Amino acid sequence: MEKRVILVVCDGLGDRPVKKLRGETPLQAAATPNLDWFTAQGACGQVDVIAPGVRPGSDTAHLALFGYDPHKVYTGRGPFEAAGVRLDVREGDVAFRCNFATLDSAGKVVDRRAGRIREGTDELAASLTDMTLDETGVAFREGTEHRGALLLRGKGLDPRVTDGDPHAVGVPVAEVRALAPEAAKTAKIVNQFMDRAREILSAHPINRQRLQDGLPPANVVLPRGAGRLAKISPVSEVWGLRFAAVAGVALVKGICRVVGMNLLDVRGATGGLDSDFDAKVSAAMAALDTHDAVVVSIKAPDIAGHDGRPEEKVRVIERIDRALGPLREAFREEWVLGVTADHSTPSSTGDHSADPVPLLAYTDGGRKDEVSQYDELAVAKGSLGRIRGVDVLPLLLDLADRTEKFGA
Amino acid sequence: MEKRVILVVCDGLGDRPVKKLRGETPLQAAATPNLDWFTAQGACGQVDVIAPGVRPGSDTAHLALFGYDPHKVYTGRGPFEAAGVRLDVREGDVAFRCNFATLDSAGKVVDRRAGRIREGTDELAASLTDMTLDETGVAFREGTEHRGALLLRGKGLDPRVTDGDPHAVGVPVAEVRALAPEAAKTAKIVNQFMDRAREILSAHPINRQRLQDGLPPANVVLPRGAGRLAKISPVSEVWGLRFAAVAGVALVKGICRVVGMNLLDVRGATGGLDSDFDAKVSAAMAALDTHDAVVVSIKAPDIAGHDGRPEEKVRVIERIDRALGPLREAFREEWVLGVTADHSTPSSTGDHSADPVPLLAYTDGGRKDEVSQYDELAVAKGSLGRIRGVDVLPLLLDLADRTEKFGA
Repeated sequence: MEKRVILVVCDGLGDRPVKKLRGETPLQAAATPNLDWFTAQGACGQVDVIAPGVRPGSDTAHLALFGYDPHKVYTGRGPFEAAGVRLDVREGDVAFRCNFATLDSAGKVVDRRAGRIREGTDELAASLTDMTLDETGVAFREGTEHRGALLLRGKGLDPRVTDGDPHAVGVPVAEVRALAPEAAKTAKIVNQFMDRAREILSAHPINRQRLQDGLPPANVVLPRGAGRLAKISPVSEVWGLRFAAVAGVALVKGICRVVGMNLLDVRGATGGLDSDFDAKVSAAMAALDTHDAVVVSIKAPDIAGHDGRPEEKVRVIERIDRALGPLREAFREEWVLGVTADHSTPSSTGDHSADPVPLLAYTDGGRKDEVSQYDELAVAKGSLGRIRGVDVLPLLLDLADRTEKFGA
Repeated sequence: MEKRVILVVCDGLGDRPVKKLRGETPLQAAATPNLDWFTAQGACGQVDVIAPGVRPGSDTAHLALFGYDPHKVYTGRGPFEAAGVRLDVREGDVAFRCNFATLDSAGKVVDRRAGRIREGTDELAASLTDMTLDETGVAFREGTEHRGALLLRGKGLDPRVTDGDPHAVGVPVAEVRALAPEAAKTAKIVNQFMDRAREILSAHPINRQRLQDGLPPANVVLPRGAGRLAKISPVSEVWGLRFAAVAGVALVKGICRVVGMNLLDVRGATGGLDSDFDAKVSAAMAALDTHDAVVVSIKAPDIAGHDGRPEEKVRVIERIDRALGPLREAFREEWVLGVTADHSTPSSTGDHSADPVPLLAYTDGGRKDEVSQYDELAVAKGSLGRIRGVDVLPLLLDLADRTEKFGA
């Protein structure tokens, strides 16, 4: 029977023992009856999302979990952020993630996030987009809050340039420099764009109003994370299947779009701690009727890990588990479930680590090992052993009888 | 917190069940309270130092454990032996490990080790070094006992040549032959060198004295293990970290030097069964104050394995464990410990095998599995699973918060 796959990716789920949690990881400490039930009924193991000892970014990690070798398709975060804010990114385009920021009259960055500006960024972005600089098409679009993305399209572009973001306050914007001779044109264009953006934004009515209201103006754009979009065959071509995705955060949305997944619009899916997990799981279940596979990305555990709040991470995990209750109740024999993470984000370090992440794989009639708890250490005894991120999707698709035979 | 790494490599530590040891491996039979303590507090697993079923040499294995793919950087043992005896080996040089040996008057090898000559090899080597043959620089230096190394530097060298060592007695020296057309020049130079060495050594006062004393003269040099030093980025460049190493045996010293580790001079670190393990561990602990990572290589278990003496191997392992006592007592939260081996050397076969080797990884705040014994079979149940040799150093450096993120 050809089955349908639902893959839940809990961002930053993995952790290390936490003293405040009596030496348990947040995932061990959390009550997760639904995850434990699926684990007990299925098989589990550990995943090195990139490779043992390699700390994954969320971008490279999601690419790997979707079956792509990030060493081949990843040059930087920009193109995925750009796709995440609905810029039309194509092979060869060079893109940057950007912040709106605030310069003082002396030209020094005083706020890298322009007071976390929430309103009017669509109008500001509209004033910056669709330029042509040095025969290169330039597009800009706003993201959430102070975020945005810059896209360059044309001949002779190269992503090997430094950031325009000085990554500090009290200093001027950084001049973008080429890190390879071939990137000189790209650096020049980005510097030109930053100058133009500064002129346009300084005179923009939104910023005049912000000054009147005593708010920091969004009078400069700081690009960073340059990347060129590589040739990426869409998942539909790679697997001959229709994929849907439910995601909240722009970066993951962008990756899902770039690999050709049908990105579902789910009300309340914010990518924040306040995201509506129930709505996401519910939308994913509905999408299984019309797609062969659905990815659900949940950002919140990563946020709690970065913030160094293990108790918050426990609560987030318990909320995710509760959101999986309806999936468990409605689970059909023609469904395959995978639950994993893109990387660990130990609350103790507040950053990504290479500690492997848990994976459970369940379907009616699939192999079942003796592990009945879904946590970092318990799954290490599972029958899936220790595998790589690029192997996760093929493994689930094989359980779904959706893979081609290699040989005869 | 950026931590500091100490990696202990016990040469040939892995073994197979031994009847004399009631079916246990030497590591199972040995009392190892300190290794067991670290294992109980940390995580453990198995390592295929090269790949499953591939029998590692000590050279390829150490390269892998230091994070280098030996398939890319290794063409033969010569360059590492040469570096081990302090010859200045550079990228492109071709080098050989050598024995001083004894020829009889008929030109046949009668002793491949020249009576395991111990004295005067420095003077003999001095008479052979700094030649120029066929516009190629030739250097020779003595090692321990009858050992030495030959280094060629110049244009058009190629390591694909046969050994001058006939690997037998009662036969003449072997003529070095090119295994590829490009290696013809190299073969010719080595044959010239062997002829010149024979002339010089036969007339050398040290050998005249040996003959008078009834000792076999060291009147020929037998080169073997040709290799060309590949481009190897130093560990300082690869990781941006300062590495130190404590090693006794020339080959491992050479590898540590070639990859740019600061090789510490430790009195009593012989690379033999008599080596002072306490001094080595103590030197390594001291070096952690001034380096980011320290490697400790201990040769003795391999010797006991090659000699087919499992009880001796048990005693050696117990001595290593005792030497780790002070490390355990002084262990700081900013330290990361890894203990593994370069390969197994089963006492039953007396040679290297591809049986995976144990690995323990411990640091305060790191993941902790339920395994509390450090031996080949117990660690197979550990949470690190089964990984490759090249993954060991990245895994430890990640626990030390010393790795770069791949992506964002």
